[in-house]
This record gives sequence, structure tokens and C-alpha cells, in this order.
Amino acid sequence: MFNKILVANRGEIALRVIRTCREMGIKTVAVYSTADKDSLHVRFADEAVCIGKPQSSESYLNIPHIMAAAEITNADAIHPGYGFLAENAKFSKICEDHGIKFIGPTGEMISSMGDKITAKETMIKAGVPVVPGSGGLLESLEQAKYLAKNEVGYPVILKATAGGGGKGMRVVWEERELERAYDTAKAEAAAAFKNDGIYMEKFVEEPRHIEIQVAGDQYGTVCHLSERDCSIQRRHQKLVEESPSPFMTPELRQEMGAAAIKAASAINYESVGTVEFLVDKHRNFYFMEMNTRIQVEHCVTEEVINFDLIKEQIKIAMGERISGRNYEPQGHAIECRINAEDPYNDFRPSPGRITVLHTPGGHGVRVDSHVYTGYVIPPYYDSMIGKLITTARTREEAIDTMYRALTEYVIEGVKTTIPFHLQLMQNEDFRRGNFTTKFLETFKMQ
Amino acid sequence: MFNKILVANRGEIALRVIRTCREMGIKTVAVYSTADKDSLHVRFADEAVCIGKPQSSESYLNIPHIMAAAEITNADAIHPGYGFLAENAKFSKICEDHGIKFIGPTGEMISSMGDKITAKETMIKAGVPVVPGSGGLLESLEQAKYLAKNEVGYPVILKATAGGGGKGMRVVWEERELERAYDTAKAEAAAAFKNDGIYMEKFVEEPRHIEIQVAGDQYGTVCHLSERDCSIQRRHQKLVEESPSPFMTPELRQEMGAAAIKAASAINYESVGTVEFLVDKHRNFYFMEMNTRIQVEHCVTEEVINFDLIKEQIKIAMGERISGRNYEPQGHAIECRINAEDPYNDFRPSPGRITVLHTPGGHGVRVDSHVYTGYVIPPYYDSMIGKLITTARTREEAIDTMYRALTEYVIEGVKTTIPFHLQLMQNEDFRRGNFTTKFLETFKMQ
Repeated sequence: MFNKILVANRGEIALRVIRTCREMGIKTVAVYSTADKDSLHVRFADEAVCIGKPQSSESYLNIPHIMAAAEITNADAIHPGYGFLAENAKFSKICEDHGIKFIGPTGEMISSMGDKITAKETMIKAGVPVVPGSGGLLESLEQAKYLAKNEVGYPVILKATAGGGGKGMRVVWEERELERAYDTAKAEAAAAFKNDGIYMEKFVEEPRHIEIQVAGDQYGTVCHLSERDCSIQRRHQKLVEESPSPFMTPELRQEMGAAAIKAASAINYESVGTVEFLVDKHRNFYFMEMNTRIQVEHCVTEEVINFDLIKEQIKIAMGERISGRNYEPQGHAIECRINAEDPYNDFRPSPGRITVLHTPGGHGVRVDSHVYTGYVIPPYYDSMIGKLITTARTREEAIDTMYRALTEYVIEGVKTTIPFHLQLMQNEDFRRGNFTTKFLETFKMQ
Repeated sequence: MFNKILVANRGEIALRVIRTCREMGIKTVAVYSTADKDSLHVRFADEAVCIGKPQSSESYLNIPHIMAAAEITNADAIHPGYGFLAENAKFSKICEDHGIKFIGPTGEMISSMGDKITAKETMIKAGVPVVPGSGGLLESLEQAKYLAKNEVGYPVILKATAGGGGKGMRVVWEERELERAYDTAKAEAAAAFKNDGIYMEKFVEEPRHIEIQVAGDQYGTVCHLSERDCSIQRRHQKLVEESPSPFMTPELRQEMGAAAIKAASAINYESVGTVEFLVDKHRNFYFMEMNTRIQVEHCVTEEVINFDLIKEQIKIAMGERISGRNYEPQGHAIECRINAEDPYNDFRPSPGRITVLHTPGGHGVRVDSHVYTGYVIPPYYDSMIGKLITTARTREEAIDTMYRALTEYVIEGVKTTIPFHLQLMQNEDFRRGNFTTKFLETFKMQ
């Protein structure tokens, strides 16, 4: 049993961890930069230590300062939250070397998933599907033809190795298109990047981002806690998450759950974590990456499986065993990220003072937020104000509750993403569950 | 389908009903007294009509004013909330006569449960257990002996018919004590009330207040939605409610559920309602009364059965059928009533302006409240500021979450019951589920 946990983070996740520690009777230490001295995580922790200047490198990323705070306060364990040092293998190792339990996986486990090439190789060995492709650069049109026909399967996508912004990128639906696409992709790549190297991948049609929450204990038991759909993204930033996925079937959940367990078992994963997949319109799924930490969107899973994932994470770190039972979602939960960003102005950050705050409540409404009336959102960190989560028996009802709760949420003094979410909740395609990761590329604010 | 519902109430329950209507896409009309013009229920309704002066008799109890508001706004239904006109048979009848659907039972159903003697007789006929007793006044010691031995069963309690405050009241555990108790009770009653009439009832040992939530539709189908334990009361005012009851067993739930269904069926009950029972230490249970309305504490049931009781109530009023399936509680939910009362000063009301407000959040926390920073609690109505509800897998965890959430709840400007709840959540007897309706008589604030 831990006596005292230092929370090496800020904002809503620091408060989230402190809340669970208080419920478990574990003392907490907050660390904070000078920009965060009036933060709620500082107020609600039992002790608080200032670890430096506002810039992350001087505070929340400064390992010596954090280790010093842990030693001064005699903390037995460190919870890293998400972001900052949460997936820093060195930090996990340093904690271990200092006899302070890192609440998360070992440095080795983090490293094995931190490098994408190693992770992909590990997954292939473990039998987890990955996006098939040429592996290295294509050497000739003939090789491309052979691979596309015999190994990858159409449609394929050709990508410039030095690429970005769609340059040197071509989708090929059948063999007769390949030669022309190969030539133009190489030519574009050469022109744009002065490097005509191209490689091939399976083209994932109408991709959805669906991830599986897993948990593993120190004794090799791994289970999955069903999925989250995070397809509503803007430039790879998730804005809305839900569980279950409207695209899920019981068979697919079983298959993806089994694959996620294989992925976590392959690295003897310990702690809670997430295996992210791309799922195409035919319900083929491909490993993207594994996040070896708690995620922002963990709350939707908590709502549909009815337990506290942070508590689970702490218990695993204390050496408790998990049952190994997998969990099916009960009901439906949706999360909207409420950020201090202007959705009418390309989601530009809008730091500043919150002059008026009124949070929604009532049946099916959960608010995870570290802000209060008078709180100043500092410009140094992410712009999250809070997470609004609604839960109901059905997806339609969860959306209706979300819309209602969003209309009650009053935040004055800064711009927020609330107007975006209000419009999304009324969008017919969204309401029908008819969306992919490309959805927001064509979504326009009214 | 209703197009527009008038909510004939104020405070948190008015907001509660409006929230569900918004989620269902039904327009709402708020009514308000001049004291409530800045209330959230006014702000969140689609329309609002001032119905009079602050005194309830001039506004929330003024049937002509409310009917006029319904007719002006063309509302097709009225939701009465709880309190005020919710159990006024005449009001239900007037609504019916005006072709406006009263969202609740008919006037006849309300009447049949409004008069305690009629209700008890109906329950006896329906086979629902009631507290046995002499019915009328005792005529002689011999009659008392006969009844105690053959019909009521020891222990019994003798009560003065004109009584109150414990005068003329005697508990009798066995026959040899009866004569003396009979004489002293009569003498005390004569001295105290100038009326020596006494009657006999079964003495309910270590009573708990456990109530069963029921729902009945217009087609005669009735189901139960499990129980709530409301034993934590102060002078018959409930302060804390939970579901399931820590005293419950699956067998007792089945028996009480069946009895509650009998009770509701006996009056062809339509709408959601509650059958209240006293349960003794041997798990005998006795009908107390039926509340023919939604109750303050309905939220704990919503949390453990995962659906919206107000939505259910509206659907029933619209003529929808219920499945008739009974519900078992999943997990555990507790509600603390946050009142503007001073627990250090005999719970004296503390109206006034809320100068600072910060509501708790996070996993397992629900807040139902109509107040905001700057809100003025008027002195004319009840002192409820809001309801704090926590839900977890186990009772112990729900209490831990409640304690944590209470520590985060900041309300400045008025005294509140938060310090009382904080102490109660730490009380060992409460935590063990070891309490009766007498619990608060000996509970002392630290």
C-alpha cells in the first residue's frame, strides 16, 4: 500500500489522480510551475512543491526537480498522468533506481512501444495485424506490382519517404493504375523533396480510429476493457471520444480485444494502457501504436464499465492481481474536450482569465475540470479547460444529454470549443455514427 | 408526444424536469414567483411566466395562476415536481378537466393514498402488510391483553390518541408489564392532554425507512425499480438516501418489491411512485404510505438502474407501455442533501447570497443543483441548495467518493449541511450500515 503519491503533472489529470488518491486514503504531493501556483491540483493535494519556471523544460519535464520533490516529501510512488514524462522510459527507470514506484510500465516496456519500427516488428511476431506494406523503399515498378498483387493487396498507397502534405502520395485502386501512379509519385517526390524514394502501404479505406483499453498486472495477466472510438480528430488531435464505437460488432470487439491482449502480452505489459488501431470500412483492423499510459479519454471507458481506471492503475502498481476478465460496455458514454480554443478561428488557442463559470449537472453528466471562476489559463501548456462526459442507455440519448449539458456550460472570458461541440452533436452524420478520421476535414462551423 | 410541458415548480426539481424535456426535444414553460425571477429554471426553460408573489399561496400553490400560464403558453402537459401541488388531487382533476395532461396519477389515485386511514384499509385488502394495532381506542385492559397476545404480538406500544412528544406512550415487551403500562399511559395522557384515550400498535424494533420505487403504465402493468434506504432522517426530514439498502437481502427485496407492486396495483397506479415501508430488525416490513409523485431522492435509483425516471414518467403520461420487468440495483449510489442550514445550530435555515460556488466533479459524482455564484436563496421556500450523488461499485467506495466530493464542494455566503455530511461519512456506524431511523437522535456534531 502506498502511503504517499507524487503527481508529476498539472491540470485536469493531476486533479483526477489526486481525487482517486483521496478516495483511497493515499496522501498526495502536487508539483507545480510558478504559472500554476493557483491551480486546483495544488489546492487539493496534501502537499505541494514548486518545481520551477513556467516552461515545461524547467518544471514538468525537469526530472531532477521532480525527483528532488519526491525525495523531500518522502513519496513512495509517482503518477505521471499523460503527456510530459508519462512515456519517458528514462524517467521510469530513474524512479525505479531511486526506489520510488513509477505508476506505469517499466522503462523497457515504454521503449519497446516508443519506437514505431520496433513496435511494428514486435506486433508482427505476436500475430497482431499491422498495415501491410513494402517495409523499405520500392526498388522498381516490377517490385511494386508484385507486392501490390501478392502481399499488400489493392487498394494501396504510395508515399514519399521524405514526404508530407500529400506531395508524392498516390492511392492506387487496381493494377492498371499502378505504373502511372508510380511514375508521378516519384516525380513529385523528387520535385518537392529532392528525394524520389517512395514506399507502399495498404490504403485503409474510410479509416476509423478505434482503440482498446487494456490492463496488465505484474503476474502476466492481461485483460481488455472494450473500445473507444476516437475518429473525431482535427489534425490528429482527438476532440470527441466515445464507448462503445458505433461501428463495433460483438465479433469485431472480440477479435480486436484478443489482438490488443496479444499486443500487451508480447511486452509483458504492466499497468493500464491503450492499443490503437485503424479500422477500415470492411472492419479489417491494423495496429497503429500502443500508448503506455492513461489517456485523456479514459473516462468514457470508466462510465461504461463502471470502475475507476486510475484506482486500477494504482492497485496494479501496488502489486495487486487483476481478474483477467474482459469487460463489455454497458450503456454508452461520450466525451467532449472543452478547450480554450476558438472554433471560428481555426481553433486558435485562447488563454486568459475565466470570468464566469457555470458547469452543467444532472442525470448522466460528469465534468472533469481543474478550472474555477477567476482561473487564468496559462499560455504555456495545452489549452484543455475540462472534459464533459455524458452517459446514457443508448448512443442517441448520450448525444441528447451532451447537447443539453453543453447548452448549460457557461465559460466567459475565453473562447472555447463548446460551439463546435454543439454543432457536432446536431450533425446528422455524427448522430448516425457515420464518420471516419477524415470527418472534420469537411466539417464547417455555421 | 407532448409538444410543450409546463413545470409547476421551482428550484432543483424544476431544473431537473426541464433538463429531461430538453433531452427529449420537448419545449418547456417555467413558472416563477417574483422571488425566483433570477432562477436557473427560468433561464433554461423555453418560456417563463411570472405567477405571483413570493408566498407559495400566491404563486406555486395558486392553481388559477398556473392554469392561466398553461393556457396562455398552450402547454399540453403539466409536470408538478414534488411538494407544492404534486399530491393535490384537485389540481390533477382540474388539469384533466382542462384537457391538459397532469404528469402523474389521476386525482382519484392521489386521493386514495392521501388519506392514511383509507390507504391502510386498501393495503390490508390488497394483502400488503401494515403495522398491526387496535385500530380504534382500547376499551379495557382485558381487550388490550387479548389484542397484544392474539392479534398484534409483543412488543407493542401504547399511544395517547391526543398525544405527542412521547407523553402517554409506553413500550410493552411482555404481558406481565402490560397492566402497569396501561395504567400509567392512561394517567399520563389524561394529565397531559385531558384525554385518556389510548390505542395500541405493534412496536417496530430498530426501524429502518426503506422505500420501493414503482412505475405503472396506463394499461395496468406495474414494476418495481428496487429500493432506497432513507433511514438517515432528522425529525422526519430525510438527509441522506441510498440504493441499495445496506440492510437488504435478495429475498427481502423480492418480498418488498412484490408488496409494493400489490400496493400500486390495488389503486391501478399510473406514473412513477414510491411505496414507503418501515422494516424492523427481524426484516418484517410494514406499509407506511405511498408517495404518488417523483421524490427528491429518485436520483440514487437512477444511478443504480441506469435510466432517467423523469423521462419514464413523461413517457408513461404520453401513453407508452412499460415492460413490466423489475430492476435490480447495479453498484451503489448515495445522495446527500445540501441544504442552506446550519448543522452547528440545530439546522436553522440560512438563506442569503451565495458569494462563492465551486461544485465537485470527476468519477462517480453527480450534482443536481439550481444555484450559481451570486444566487440568492430566498427565505420563502425549502432550503435545498442541491443534491450531491455519488455512485461506485460498492457502498464503501460510494462513501469514499462522497467524502472526497464533499471536501471539494465550496459554498460561501450561507451555512450549509456539508459539515454534517462530512462527519456522517466518517461515522463508523454509518459506514458499517448500522443505523435506524433513530440514528440522528444521538448523533452529535463535532
